[in-house]
Amino acid sequence: MTTKIIVAGPRGKMGSEAIEMIRETEGFELVACLDRKGSDVGDKILDVPVFHDPETCFTEVDADILVDLTTPQVGYAHTEAAIKHHIRPVVGTSGFTNDQITELKKLAKEHNVSGIIAPNFAVGAVLLMKFSQLAAKYFPDVEIIEKHHDQKLDAPSGTAMKTADMITQVREPKKQGHPDEKETLAGARGGDVEGVRVHSVRLPGLVAHEEVIFGGKGQIFTLKHDSMNRGSFMDGIKLSIEEVLKKDELIYGLENIL
Amino acid sequence: MTTKIIVAGPRGKMGSEAIEMIRETEGFELVACLDRKGSDVGDKILDVPVFHDPETCFTEVDADILVDLTTPQVGYAHTEAAIKHHIRPVVGTSGFTNDQITELKKLAKEHNVSGIIAPNFAVGAVLLMKFSQLAAKYFPDVEIIEKHHDQKLDAPSGTAMKTADMITQVREPKKQGHPDEKETLAGARGGDVEGVRVHSVRLPGLVAHEEVIFGGKGQIFTLKHDSMNRGSFMDGIKLSIEEVLKKDELIYGLENIL
Amino acid sequence: MTTKIIVAGPRGKMGSEAIEMIRETEGFELVACLDRKGSDVGDKILDVPVFHDPETCFTEVDADILVDLTTPQVGYAHTEAAIKHHIRPVVGTSGFTNDQITELKKLAKEHNVSGIIAPNFAVGAVLLMKFSQLAAKYFPDVEIIEKHHDQKLDAPSGTAMKTADMITQVREPKKQGHPDEKETLAGARGGDVEGVRVHSVRLPGLVAHEEVIFGGKGQIFTLKHDSMNRGSFMDGIKLSIEEVLKKDELIYGLENIL
Amino acid sequence: MTTKIIVAGPRGKMGSEAIEMIRETEGFELVACLDRKGSDVGDKILDVPVFHDPETCFTEVDADILVDLTTPQVGYAHTEAAIKHHIRPVVGTSGFTNDQITELKKLAKEHNVSGIIAPNFAVGAVLLMKFSQLAAKYFPDVEIIEKHHDQKLDAPSGTAMKTADMITQVREPKKQGHPDEKETLAGARGGDVEGVRVHSVRLPGLVAHEEVIFGGKGQIFTLKHDSMNRGSFMDGIKLSIEEVLKKDELIYGLENIL
Repeated sequence: MTTKIIVAGPRGKMGSEAIEMIRETEGFELVACLDRKGSDVGDKILDVPVFHDPETCFTEVDADILVDLTTPQVGYAHTEAAIKHHIRPVVGTSGFTNDQITELKKLAKEHNVSGIIAPNFAVGAVLLMKFSQLAAKYFPDVEIIEKHHDQKLDAPSGTAMKTADMITQVREPKKQGHPDEKETLAGARGGDVEGVRVHSVRLPGLVAHEEVIFGGKGQIFTLKHDSMNRGSFMDGIKLSIEEVLKKDELIYGLENIL
Repeated sequence: MTTKIIVAGPRGKMGSEAIEMIRETEGFELVACLDRKGSDVGDKILDVPVFHDPETCFTEVDADILVDLTTPQVGYAHTEAAIKHHIRPVVGTSGFTNDQITELKKLAKEHNVSGIIAPNFAVGAVLLMKFSQLAAKYFPDVEIIEKHHDQKLDAPSGTAMKTADMITQVREPKKQGHPDEKETLAGARGGDVEGVRVHSVRLPGLVAHEEVIFGGKGQIFTLKHDSMNRGSFMDGIKLSIEEVLKKDELIYGLENIL
Repeated sequence: MTTKIIVAGPRGKMGSEAIEMIRETEGFELVACLDRKGSDVGDKILDVPVFHDPETCFTEVDADILVDLTTPQVGYAHTEAAIKHHIRPVVGTSGFTNDQITELKKLAKEHNVSGIIAPNFAVGAVLLMKFSQLAAKYFPDVEIIEKHHDQKLDAPSGTAMKTADMITQVREPKKQGHPDEKETLAGARGGDVEGVRVHSVRLPGLVAHEEVIFGGKGQIFTLKHDSMNRGSFMDGIKLSIEEVLKKDELIYGLENIL
Repeated sequence: MTTKIIVAGPRGKMGSEAIEMIRETEGFELVACLDRKGSDVGDKILDVPVFHDPETCFTEVDADILVDLTTPQVGYAHTEAAIKHHIRPVVGTSGFTNDQITELKKLAKEHNVSGIIAPNFAVGAVLLMKFSQLAAKYFPDVEIIEKHHDQKLDAPSGTAMKTADMITQVREPKKQGHPDEKETLAGARGGDVEGVRVHSVRLPGLVAHEEVIFGGKGQIFTLKHDSMNRGSFMDGIKLSIEEVLKKDELIYGLENIL
């Protein structure tokens, strides 16, 4: 049986790789695209119609899945419309508010439609966070080192902060290091998230790397993720499409289907 | 409430560190030792009696836990006797046969006694294996590098082989690398465990290190454990004592209480 | 003062990045290209003429440097001609024979022209080899781990083999590891280059990585190079152009100008 | 020929390992010890006399080398006396002032005696610093991560600070990272030594580790040293004894004999 897929945002970097992935995956079929700049009439990508209006698209096209790789604002409207048309949404965004997520979950339940909204589709990054939270139960002492190219504006990275937050959820706040520790160079001991130290390295040549280091008596346990390019997201989108077909609710976060 | 503990093998390297750990842990109390060279009369370690005969020891001493750090042969007899006296065994050995483990589990059930037998008490090493098995579901391509001091006789290490076995249990056998790959130097591509490549490094200065590297499109996910000294085992023994008190069966493998 | 540069092989992957680098570097000026498919008349890249015939090119164009990124066969003829026209060659190839290199060095001396022929323009990779040879004097125990994407056909990589060779030049042949060491899984201990063990990892997601690990009593010293893309070669070509202008002979190997 | 060695500070941790090293090294012979608590009469370590007074010791004993592993104050007096008696000093201390070092060098020259004063005898740590300074010429972007056990009081470590200083000596001051970079968590980007970022990790289970990471276009070059125990210093002392016999001046820093 073939899974019929609509891609929203087909001309962006993520969207065009998603289309490539669908084309290469046995059992997946691209049936339409949804693009703000689409014309509803005559516009085509890889022989499938490109729609401008989601209502028209979801009414005219018979589809199982909507892969949405647009912006939070556009994506929200798409997701709402897809659910109402019984098309399962697979949405890549970290931009929805908690209220929006709650609203969409409610709507999905009413219409009995499953789906997933994921801030991060890189399976390795999500496993890193999940396993870090599990390991923190046994190793309360932990530091995070994240490394990125020197064009990145913010430090620490969002993933590093989220990992630190997830760790603090399962352990008591803890001042790490020696109680009388002294920083003779300000900042050397990194940033402090309820005792978890976070260090950000920025260098040309780096891509996107995160390391979570746990220390215990006589041992060190390390989890590490290196992201080289967007290819890593495609495996997560593919997995999400497959898993969503087996679920009966709208899920938030890739970790909840791993 | 205090947990009363007997240590078997108190004069070995592991045993003496276990006694130290018990002394330092609030709520733990060393109540007796069991030693082949003990005299049953008058011999003492840290003010507690040292017994030669397990029957005498378990009859005369009121204890909750037996920590056994002897040899497989001696340890088996100790474990059997402890169960019959309703003392929960915490046994560190990789030397019991499957039949012996089945036999002890049956005996524990009959006497309604809990306990644990663990080939490895290093929490980090056990998490490494457990998480590797979980990650292998999403990353079928994986290689293992283990590094040890150059006094180690066998390659690969037991832990590396066990990790490879656990991974092959959850994935289809797979020939990794390029189908036409050519080794121009024999052995360069490492050992092969149903497609999982295993590499053993031996150098002075190393202690005991294991790394499991998963590769996927555009990403690398790595799990790593560095063991610096026996201190790492003590946290696992302590955790086992605490967990065994809450269980109602004899468990094999630290991974089953993590 | 401006350095006038001719690029041979301007439409290949390396060549087009070299042209980009020259454009972005203050003091460098692209004055012509040399291409087997060039027409000698009217063909242009970035407003400079593209020649088919090296003689015509070197006669008509006033240049300081020839950057040659073609094939060994074509490159040899280009290099010979350039030297005769007093244009300094900067050649990226590992394909010249020892005899060819000797011949070109002699010719350069006769014409009093400097230049460089380099099998590898990645400064980091060359430093890795150079420093490894220096460190091996103090640490006779060493192993090499190289990691590449799983589309690579040969194992070990050329750089790893060259590094091993350079190390064996400065140390006595040595059987590493325990004298009674036993491989219970064939290949686990890697390939053997006069005692230096070499391990090759192949996984999707990897690019090109090499690690040289030295072990001594109580310490480990590691050198590592990660190559992410061809960008790394451009810094080496740029450095070579600058250094060649200060030299008075034809040099083989980037290590000899670092 | 045998090298006759006096050890000062024979009962400290370093001193006792140095005596062990001398005993195990062919061609080395322990001929006396020098100890504040030595008696000058009858006191012995391994069958050699233990002196309290350096003058008495150096007058009565025929020796080639003094290995001094005491305190800066005591060590200075010992070194001075040794030079006057034509015994070559090998001194492990970071506590001498620049003036003291100049003074001792002058004295050594007058008496025509060679020797070495080294703040760090770990060959790997010294190579790390030396190679870092060399690499910084080609890679101006660099960050340092040092990791130590959580009983260490100061951050960053002395070695990390010295490495950063050595790097800044060979490069122009440089603000690394994106010009508009923003730290959303104070300290995340580490300490700043003229643009070189330094990060200090403190965890139980760690020993003493330093990593210098250089980034360039498309590549990363890393130098790493892991120190597991004091054994690493002994190889440096041994090497120093051997090299000092070939020199004709007093040298400061192990890097100057590597």
